[in-house]
Amino acid sequence: MTQLELVKSLQEPNDTKIVLLVADGLGGLPVEPGGRTELETANTPHLDQAARDGVCGLSIPVLPGITPGSGPGHLALFGYDPLDYQIGRGILEALGIGFPIGPKDVAARDNFCTVDEQGRITDRRAGRPSTERCAEMVNKLRQIRIPSVEIFVEPVREHRFVLVLRGEGLGDEVNDTDPQQEGKPPLPALGRPGSERTAGIVNQFVARAAEILRDHAPTNMLTLRGFSRHPGIPTLQEVYGVKPVALAVYPMYKGLARLVGMDVVDGLQTLDEQLAALEQAWNKYDFFFLHYKYTDSTGEDGNFQAKVKAIEALDTAIPRIRARKPDVLIVTGDHSTPSKLRSHSWHPVPTLLVADTCRPDHVNSFGESACLQGGLGLFQAKHLMLLALAHARRLGKFGA
Amino acid sequence: MTQLELVKSLQEPNDTKIVLLVADGLGGLPVEPGGRTELETANTPHLDQAARDGVCGLSIPVLPGITPGSGPGHLALFGYDPLDYQIGRGILEALGIGFPIGPKDVAARDNFCTVDEQGRITDRRAGRPSTERCAEMVNKLRQIRIPSVEIFVEPVREHRFVLVLRGEGLGDEVNDTDPQQEGKPPLPALGRPGSERTAGIVNQFVARAAEILRDHAPTNMLTLRGFSRHPGIPTLQEVYGVKPVALAVYPMYKGLARLVGMDVVDGLQTLDEQLAALEQAWNKYDFFFLHYKYTDSTGEDGNFQAKVKAIEALDTAIPRIRARKPDVLIVTGDHSTPSKLRSHSWHPVPTLLVADTCRPDHVNSFGESACLQGGLGLFQAKHLMLLALAHARRLGKFGA
Repeated sequence: MTQLELVKSLQEPNDTKIVLLVADGLGGLPVEPGGRTELETANTPHLDQAARDGVCGLSIPVLPGITPGSGPGHLALFGYDPLDYQIGRGILEALGIGFPIGPKDVAARDNFCTVDEQGRITDRRAGRPSTERCAEMVNKLRQIRIPSVEIFVEPVREHRFVLVLRGEGLGDEVNDTDPQQEGKPPLPALGRPGSERTAGIVNQFVARAAEILRDHAPTNMLTLRGFSRHPGIPTLQEVYGVKPVALAVYPMYKGLARLVGMDVVDGLQTLDEQLAALEQAWNKYDFFFLHYKYTDSTGEDGNFQAKVKAIEALDTAIPRIRARKPDVLIVTGDHSTPSKLRSHSWHPVPTLLVADTCRPDHVNSFGESACLQGGLGLFQAKHLMLLALAHARRLGKFGA
Repeated sequence: MTQLELVKSLQEPNDTKIVLLVADGLGGLPVEPGGRTELETANTPHLDQAARDGVCGLSIPVLPGITPGSGPGHLALFGYDPLDYQIGRGILEALGIGFPIGPKDVAARDNFCTVDEQGRITDRRAGRPSTERCAEMVNKLRQIRIPSVEIFVEPVREHRFVLVLRGEGLGDEVNDTDPQQEGKPPLPALGRPGSERTAGIVNQFVARAAEILRDHAPTNMLTLRGFSRHPGIPTLQEVYGVKPVALAVYPMYKGLARLVGMDVVDGLQTLDEQLAALEQAWNKYDFFFLHYKYTDSTGEDGNFQAKVKAIEALDTAIPRIRARKPDVLIVTGDHSTPSKLRSHSWHPVPTLLVADTCRPDHVNSFGESACLQGGLGLFQAKHLMLLALAHARRLGKFGA
């Protein structure tokens, strides 16, 4: 019996409310040996209070030593094993621009490129056109019609765009058409068993696109990569019986939330707006995913002090969330982003959970080192939702 | 390679002795935030000494957040993954009355009910007859004979009884015959592939029972639910090479012990009698499962002080057990039952293991918070038997 089957079979209706606050890339590292991490340096009286009131630990997003991208990091927090549900590059690119990926979709991440008269690629990025030109070319491609599929073409940036095919029975076992070197023509799409028809559709699309783009050098051809299907993830509603909503600023996280069945509040730009949206949505939903980006982006910039400030800004939001009296409040991250490394990392992520049914531990402040003493221990991120539901009294007993 | 295959392949004969003392529902919660749990409140000098002598930790019965029933909780302690070996409702009901379930058995939990002249159920519980009447009706049903199966009918309480079919090739993919509402007749049994013959036997049984009960309204009909087979668990002897005995008072735990191949000492009513039986059995066995119920029942009653007393009573048993000088002594629980929640819960269970080969940790008393600092850490209950066998020097090296 899998974890998802188990938890689905144990669902118990309740009207309790769960807030999952994800501070992207929350975990960090000291810059100097023996120093403090960003979280330990930040002045966070409200997070510290929450750590005292609840139970703490450190979450391992995928496996020890594995650095996750945003996709696997979030899937694990939503209770899915990121090794079971992988999000392909095409799907991820589509989510990143906020495209509402659905269960019948196959997506590819695409480049405009330049080809010579023999059709050989002379520039794999078409001279990095402006994003405006990208949108203009994409617009031309939107006239392409192929029977039995819906086609969506969406600009991303410069030479990059997204193709989404929507229809019954599509497959994603289609090779990249990018030959990965100049001087060669784009490759034909070939489908492995189950994806032959999809490959045929792709080849029709490419042939039509080549005609349309012919006179528009340097953007006179395209390559397609990372064909991937909607990962077929069962929704949070199905698995957990919750009514979930996402309050996120950035498209990627809204996309990931949609992928698991969350409603998404659009148009939010600031943490204040996210909190106001939380208050507005409070009676309509029972699971609230708040995403905070700046702990990650400052880490990626390698700016220790800016990450400290981002954490302190987040800390000021805690009282406003706790004022709603959620039955369960979780603060965690989808992975670590130590500013020392300027990138995502594999280090476990400080996590706190506040509920009436927490067993006390000795953690008095919210930080990596303190969380090591916490009652949640070092745990796998995919188990966090089980704990959230248990503390929200939404899980029945397993066996008698 | 599964855990069971691994450990079976590493068996090494030895005459060391292991005592597994299960205090049912041992783990608890403070009533007030920041307070102490039942175990932390109890005066337990002998358990504290054992914690100092050995190594401690907290066991997760199934998965974080999952609250187990007694079945999964005990299977995990016996070293079986409770998600791999599930104990059906019929089997569990049979175990609960101490019926010696065997490998060829299919069991169902059954109700006497009342039907009108058209055969429609008018009372799903037959007016809750006395347990004496239940036994009397069950006795009438014992005259039913069906070729190729042995039939056992056993009273439980009021309207409830158990049917066990024993024979070759029986299946448990048989629907409940209880329509779950009054005004409808009982459903016929239909078998899914592999269980058709069993369903036929069930329908023969029901038809004969209906004749026998016809003139005995309100107990003039029956419904059958929760068909389940013996879970086919390999025995402790096979997997671990031990000679095990169960010293338990309550039928459910004796039944669970039989299910994994333990001998069972019957007739024990008190902890003193269990200890005397331990002493008597000492030379005949090498694995001793002692079950203590009152840490759970007091927790279920929501009686914090009574649970404290139950723990203190258990503490007095420790010297008598340690006087036998077991090579390995484990004290744990099958799950937590915080009196604050009046029910089983998902919280990890304080656990101690004493042996000559323990590496010291800094735990000086036996309690939830102290165990967080222990050398066993937060661990999955199904791994505990591996540690028991290792410390008992009964496991060889894996690989060369």
